[in-house]
Amino acid sequence: MHRYFIYLAYDGTRYHGWQIQPNGISIQQELMTALATFLRREVEVTGAGRTDAGVHARLMVAHFDFPTPLDTGQVTDKLNRLLPPDIAVYKVIQVKPDLHARFDATYRTYRYYVTTAKVPFNRQYTCRIIGKPLDFEAMNKAAETLFDYTDFTSFCKLHTDVKTNNCHIMQAHWQQQSETTWVFTIQADRFLRNMVRAIVGTLFEVGRGKLTIEGFRQIIEKKDRCAAGTSAPGHALFLEDIGYELE
Amino acid sequence: MHRYFIYLAYDGTRYHGWQIQPNGISIQQELMTALATFLRREVEVTGAGRTDAGVHARLMVAHFDFPTPLDTGQVTDKLNRLLPPDIAVYKVIQVKPDLHARFDATYRTYRYYVTTAKVPFNRQYTCRIIGKPLDFEAMNKAAETLFDYTDFTSFCKLHTDVKTNNCHIMQAHWQQQSETTWVFTIQADRFLRNMVRAIVGTLFEVGRGKLTIEGFRQIIEKKDRCAAGTSAPGHALFLEDIGYELE
Repeated sequence: MHRYFIYLAYDGTRYHGWQIQPNGISIQQELMTALATFLRREVEVTGAGRTDAGVHARLMVAHFDFPTPLDTGQVTDKLNRLLPPDIAVYKVIQVKPDLHARFDATYRTYRYYVTTAKVPFNRQYTCRIIGKPLDFEAMNKAAETLFDYTDFTSFCKLHTDVKTNNCHIMQAHWQQQSETTWVFTIQADRFLRNMVRAIVGTLFEVGRGKLTIEGFRQIIEKKDRCAAGTSAPGHALFLEDIGYELE
Repeated sequence: MHRYFIYLAYDGTRYHGWQIQPNGISIQQELMTALATFLRREVEVTGAGRTDAGVHARLMVAHFDFPTPLDTGQVTDKLNRLLPPDIAVYKVIQVKPDLHARFDATYRTYRYYVTTAKVPFNRQYTCRIIGKPLDFEAMNKAAETLFDYTDFTSFCKLHTDVKTNNCHIMQAHWQQQSETTWVFTIQADRFLRNMVRAIVGTLFEVGRGKLTIEGFRQIIEKKDRCAAGTSAPGHALFLEDIGYELE
């Protein structure tokens, strides 16, 4: 079998997330349908991770196997023609047959976009904070405490199939992008389900003065799936990057 | 009477353009409805110009008169609360009673956004060029010829109420913004109806090799409202800036 990596991007607005759902459209389904159309057989597509409903990806990586060698440039062109306008394939490359899009990813980077003013554009990609301005300094101090922990059970959704809740955080900081836009960048070797949105939602509580930095730390230490704040809305979250050691 | 200038921005996607229409929603109507709600009387709003259906404004200026002095900060806040999320007011300022949002504007700047690749994001703000790449160098040479003329009848829609078709072009050039994005900036003291989209659509024909630069020049010289190419789609056009001599 030959294994191929697909590098793609998508606007998640219309989708019920990456993963195939019994009710509702998914990116994985769109990819599998497009591949089956021109390869003339069913092909299983495995993504580097799941993104929730409404979450976007500036880079997602997925692999599939095929018994005969493929012209990767042609696969890219055909996929782009067959896929809807909100899914675009950057490239398709052949990789070693045992390289796994999910298990061999060394890091994932997510970004969360916040606007502090009424901005008419890009509303489908940004979370607007209404009312009292957020204290981003306090939110950055709270974000720094993430580096002291590896068990993020508190920020994980119930009923997931993973064996451990351990993640190694590599980056976690808020940065001002313009007068009215702030971006949270978080990078880790892996993320639990819902984890980024739960962290952002809990950091919002810190930014609103409803939770202290010590309180944020206590939430992590509780390892309790009900301890975290409300998850931040999905439409402002982007999967930005995924790393592999390709050689 | 006291005269006020409203500086605003809007995403035109949902609207039938700036101007009040018998059928369909307009930015002008939304503004007048919001003002009437908290000023408790009908107020006429005059815009610096009309934008077509689907066209956006990063800056539009409009004036209104009111018999008693208003707290401009409060007017800004109230408008932002009452207006839908796709219309935002930057500021409201008091101006001299005879300063006219339309007639006293010294320039208008428009931008038109083109993408040459499949990009899943911001599709509602960008025109995607499919097929053969455009020759932007030729398009820039053609755009330069605009400076040699003032009568742009050829790029004007039929049945308009203006007395002259003369415009003084101050800027007109294509610039590459990223690997796959190009932006056309055009600035003039005034624009005729549909003029920017007709110019962009005709420049596309130059870029596709279907029209020479001399042919582009001949279209202008014909002063014929049927001579120009198809108008480019409105959703990729932004009114960017409007100038006044406020003192």
